[in-house]
Amino acid sequence: MSGDIQQAIDELIQRFGDRTSRNPDILAQHGRDESFHQPAPPDLVVFPTTTEEVRDIVMICVEHQTPIIPFGVGTSLEGHVAALSGGVCIDLSQMNRVLEVNADDMDVRVEAGVTRKQLNDELRHTGLFFPVDPGADATLGGMVATGASGTNAVRYGTMRDNVLGLTAVMASGEIIRTGGRARKSSSGYDLTRLLCGSEGTLGIITEVQLRCYGQPEARSAAVCAFQTLNGAVDSVIEIIQAGIPIARVELLDELQIKAVNQYSNLDYAESPTLFFEFHGTEASVIEQSEQVKEISTDHGGGEFRWSLKAEEQNALWQARHDAYYAAMALRPGCSGWPTDVCVPISRLTECILETRTDVDESGILAPIVGHVGDGNFHLLLLIDTNDPAEVENATALNARLVERALAMGGTCTGEHGIGYGKLPFMVKEHGKSLEVMHAIKQALDPNNLLNPGKVIPY
Amino acid sequence: MSGDIQQAIDELIQRFGDRTSRNPDILAQHGRDESFHQPAPPDLVVFPTTTEEVRDIVMICVEHQTPIIPFGVGTSLEGHVAALSGGVCIDLSQMNRVLEVNADDMDVRVEAGVTRKQLNDELRHTGLFFPVDPGADATLGGMVATGASGTNAVRYGTMRDNVLGLTAVMASGEIIRTGGRARKSSSGYDLTRLLCGSEGTLGIITEVQLRCYGQPEARSAAVCAFQTLNGAVDSVIEIIQAGIPIARVELLDELQIKAVNQYSNLDYAESPTLFFEFHGTEASVIEQSEQVKEISTDHGGGEFRWSLKAEEQNALWQARHDAYYAAMALRPGCSGWPTDVCVPISRLTECILETRTDVDESGILAPIVGHVGDGNFHLLLLIDTNDPAEVENATALNARLVERALAMGGTCTGEHGIGYGKLPFMVKEHGKSLEVMHAIKQALDPNNLLNPGKVIPY
Repeated sequence: MSGDIQQAIDELIQRFGDRTSRNPDILAQHGRDESFHQPAPPDLVVFPTTTEEVRDIVMICVEHQTPIIPFGVGTSLEGHVAALSGGVCIDLSQMNRVLEVNADDMDVRVEAGVTRKQLNDELRHTGLFFPVDPGADATLGGMVATGASGTNAVRYGTMRDNVLGLTAVMASGEIIRTGGRARKSSSGYDLTRLLCGSEGTLGIITEVQLRCYGQPEARSAAVCAFQTLNGAVDSVIEIIQAGIPIARVELLDELQIKAVNQYSNLDYAESPTLFFEFHGTEASVIEQSEQVKEISTDHGGGEFRWSLKAEEQNALWQARHDAYYAAMALRPGCSGWPTDVCVPISRLTECILETRTDVDESGILAPIVGHVGDGNFHLLLLIDTNDPAEVENATALNARLVERALAMGGTCTGEHGIGYGKLPFMVKEHGKSLEVMHAIKQALDPNNLLNPGKVIPY
Repeated sequence: MSGDIQQAIDELIQRFGDRTSRNPDILAQHGRDESFHQPAPPDLVVFPTTTEEVRDIVMICVEHQTPIIPFGVGTSLEGHVAALSGGVCIDLSQMNRVLEVNADDMDVRVEAGVTRKQLNDELRHTGLFFPVDPGADATLGGMVATGASGTNAVRYGTMRDNVLGLTAVMASGEIIRTGGRARKSSSGYDLTRLLCGSEGTLGIITEVQLRCYGQPEARSAAVCAFQTLNGAVDSVIEIIQAGIPIARVELLDELQIKAVNQYSNLDYAESPTLFFEFHGTEASVIEQSEQVKEISTDHGGGEFRWSLKAEEQNALWQARHDAYYAAMALRPGCSGWPTDVCVPISRLTECILETRTDVDESGILAPIVGHVGDGNFHLLLLIDTNDPAEVENATALNARLVERALAMGGTCTGEHGIGYGKLPFMVKEHGKSLEVMHAIKQALDPNNLLNPGKVIPY
């Protein structure tokens, strides 16, 4: 640890006292996310409670040239929180107040540490909800920072589409407020969306203004098993092309369904399956489901298993959200490596089928789940990270998957972000654009102190 | 003209020959948009046909420290194209090819000079359409550059929501491609949205990848006159809060309706009026219109005048789009100064009523039209720009309007952009964020050659 970092630590401990920690367990927990990537603990964790305190931490760290890593609840998947060069972790979980609920305008302002479930609990009595749902109960600050989305982005959009404005602390020590409460604006550069997905490398997000939605009048969910994987994916493509405003449409392949059945003690038919959810008026939900049933039947879909009551729907989506843990249970003791490509929807069937073949040939156990309405799907590579041959095999498989997606006009990450796990693909995906990203990073964080080693390959 | 600019002009003429112009009429036309702002002609206009030619123009201009101003068809409204420091105008209107129509993915790639009407003509046979409609037949490059929106943003979003990727030439001479064809991505900084709304100050947009939509199965339009202005606006607020997916909802106040009647020889009742459009399935269009009628009736709305046939609907929206020219005809020989604030919808009635009173007290003739579903409305100040007292009066009125909107959590511009007309409000609206915008501008255009004097006050 350089003398500079020690100096920053001393000053932070003096300033924040028992709202700092050097407990090795706490440090280890803050250098690790839910991925298999090599963790790296910070040298100190600080727990601020206000934007001004975050500013003070940043100022002290910048003065002593100490890296700064923001942390929500650690549910990211590409090593986003690893303190690759050591430094100070800013844990924002104590900044967890819902600051404003503007029910008439359907927007809210929250501190960065509020989680999506907490927000929805606090919104329930207003008739509003916040739709973006990556599965994990992530913080909203973290979800903005990684550009998260999830199961119902197909209807309601991603974080990028639902963030109206931000408060952030920049490396200069300035506190800025971007965006605003108006539904649209053409006033200057869109700093809100520049910070969204910047993963703490351009500024520390401390507050978030979000768009919410009215609870739909009616809601229904259904599960439909297909004879073939391409039948399921082709159905989704046709549903999207028909403009049916489906709220969620999730693919689980045969292996994933088997895992879900075992893990959650369910009895779904073990074949490629779509989980659907419909939102709207009573009439429109019926209309949408009839259209979807017709399309699914044309592609070899079987009976629709309906969940009409809220509890049944919650159980269904809990099973979907548990897919990650269910898959991990297929190979006890393994690590899970989730891939995350996203392609134009016309290429989705081809991409998934080629990938399924590639996986089978690799010998890696890897179920598929997908937010297929967006063209986004995940393999969960179940590997023993202590076996170098397995890691090499998985690394090569993932690289082929990304190459395949990029060749189809897609992206290496639909929703997990870059962290340091996806860094090797940035040049290939962005070409000269990466130089522009680098210039912006240098302009806003000239000493590369904000979450160094993430997003931009130096 | 400095020696440097002369050198750039000589080289450009040598390189592009008769695809350059120094004809004074052409120069004057390229320094003027549709606003009342003082025009400023460039020293040369060049008409490139490829991205590589744009790059060559940029390289020559940068070498000789010559300002570069991109130009589409000149329909902007805040002096965006004025060559405030002289320099070279890049007229992109000859880059007008639709490069790709990916009907299955509902996206297109176009050169920057394609206009929205041209695109929709070329899309017609595919069953797709591009919804963003600012009224003027602007180029799509210009619409991205200003962050345009218009009448059906309430349903389909703004340019920011519908641009998937861009090709741009940067001041470094690099050609970059941002974004891609995937519906979502968390891969790196969102350069697409950074360039969207940057008004040519960060790069010259040469190609645009856009999201399109399926033509709705059914479409209907209606006009409803209200007893009071607040009855009309309150109806809209309630419609939005109810989550009704209305495709357009436009307010025209009494004075604007009078103007439209005179200009287009129509017979609408001369009271505050809403123009509605509904898109969806047959059943959902009926359901939406019934909900909207009920809400409107509760707020003093009269009969709905329906337009069910396409020709009638086109006539209705033509009348709405002609509102600008209709208003100008109220005072022949005047100039029109369109204001553009946008506020959270809960504050819209209050903002419009206070503004109506302020306008009446100012003595300025100024009808109101509004994309009220977004909280965005325009006054058209009809003034004699040769009368300094009138200009001063209008300037003060506009400043009060912006102050009012900002105090309500709104923005100085919902869709027209900053140009140089709105520059005086940037500090007030953005505070410290403006320093971040400035840092980005300096990083990407260190010599301030790209459309200097716009967006960022130096």
